[in-house]
Amino acid sequence: MSGTLHILGVGPGDPELVTLRAARLLGATGTYAFFAKRGRPGHARRIAAAHLNPAAEELRFDYPFTTDLSVEDPRYAEGMGRFYDDCAAAVATRLAAGQDVALLCEGDPFLYGSAMYLFDRLRTTHRVEVTPGITAMAGCWSRAGVPMVHGDDSLSVLPATMPEAELTAALERCDAAVVMKLGRNLPKLRAALSASGRGEGAVYAERGTMADEIILPLAERDDSPAPYFSLVLIPGRRGVR
Amino acid sequence: MSGTLHILGVGPGDPELVTLRAARLLGATGTYAFFAKRGRPGHARRIAAAHLNPAAEELRFDYPFTTDLSVEDPRYAEGMGRFYDDCAAAVATRLAAGQDVALLCEGDPFLYGSAMYLFDRLRTTHRVEVTPGITAMAGCWSRAGVPMVHGDDSLSVLPATMPEAELTAALERCDAAVVMKLGRNLPKLRAALSASGRGEGAVYAERGTMADEIILPLAERDDSPAPYFSLVLIPGRRGVR
Repeated sequence: MSGTLHILGVGPGDPELVTLRAARLLGATGTYAFFAKRGRPGHARRIAAAHLNPAAEELRFDYPFTTDLSVEDPRYAEGMGRFYDDCAAAVATRLAAGQDVALLCEGDPFLYGSAMYLFDRLRTTHRVEVTPGITAMAGCWSRAGVPMVHGDDSLSVLPATMPEAELTAALERCDAAVVMKLGRNLPKLRAALSASGRGEGAVYAERGTMADEIILPLAERDDSPAPYFSLVLIPGRRGVR
Repeated sequence: MSGTLHILGVGPGDPELVTLRAARLLGATGTYAFFAKRGRPGHARRIAAAHLNPAAEELRFDYPFTTDLSVEDPRYAEGMGRFYDDCAAAVATRLAAGQDVALLCEGDPFLYGSAMYLFDRLRTTHRVEVTPGITAMAGCWSRAGVPMVHGDDSLSVLPATMPEAELTAALERCDAAVVMKLGRNLPKLRAALSASGRGEGAVYAERGTMADEIILPLAERDDSPAPYFSLVLIPGRRGVR
């Protein structure tokens, strides 16, 4: 009897925003796995901590690169592909031994989650079940008190890595927007919001739902680089009042 | 001491996809409220049923219109505005008496949720806290096994009520897309997917995570009207493999 890989969304940061299903599976699974930056505790591991089975085996997958190799370098894609192959092999060994494995993912697994690469590698040969999680954006707009999408509004989730002209055009067209991957792109985003006339009501959110969250009008945020757990919310325009 | 309004996302349908926080607040709150169509049990009420405090007071808000008045009719917006005013007043009476109220919302409250209209009416005068929920789209893409958004992909959430040319252009531009509000618009959506070259891999999902869910390739779905709980998933294009 081969085991099941449970890919579990553990939500945006507050351990109480884990679902009942994820909490049950975390407590019942003999092996748990997670991705982390080298030398760091791992975000998903920290969110899930209270729900883990203390007797479970831990499989830690350290990303092979951090900032030492550009994502445009062909060696990056190659190295990451090999890394995910190795992770999938480690999981497959446990599944073949009849052991269930829980793979922890911050937010939702299928929205920008590394878990997708293991899903792609294991889905045809193993039993894989996916449990959705609360997304970082939903955590942030709930904490910020920003109702986002009304009636027939559209919502665009945009990476701030887009060229400025494209970002401006996308912001002009959409109703509500969430801008991710801010990094060093805050000055560019500010210019695109100004050019598209969409800056009003824009909110900056960092580490939403965590103990050290920061939520403030984007106009009050300086242009210094934004950390990984940050995004900008632009509420939609239509709807019954 | 005035009470707190807890606006609680209860997720896409499976009662186990409620968060620990929502389950705790549902059990602890003396009054719960929900929106429903006249004569129906109410989706959010049904999802939350197992977690409700049996001694709690129930406040049921029946939508004043169903299909007897067009949403374009000015009497619709006016009537809905009055309806939400009345709902807010009923909640405010409990809060003023020092009672906490839980407002149940399917999916996430700030993504197309009616709860936004009570939030707007009560936020400045009362204590209001929002608990995010698993969205219908995340429930559907998890059950469908469709990884959606990779790397620097964008995601567009589009209502199928858009004019066909706009829908086609939006599908051409985006990476991943979720199309909501299908209703009688499946033939139009199919034409827009064909014109934009984005039909490959499109998945139809109805009542995802519920006991009677239907998930199938859009190509295998006929053009008969789609129910409220349905959407189409179009996975993104980029990312490490």
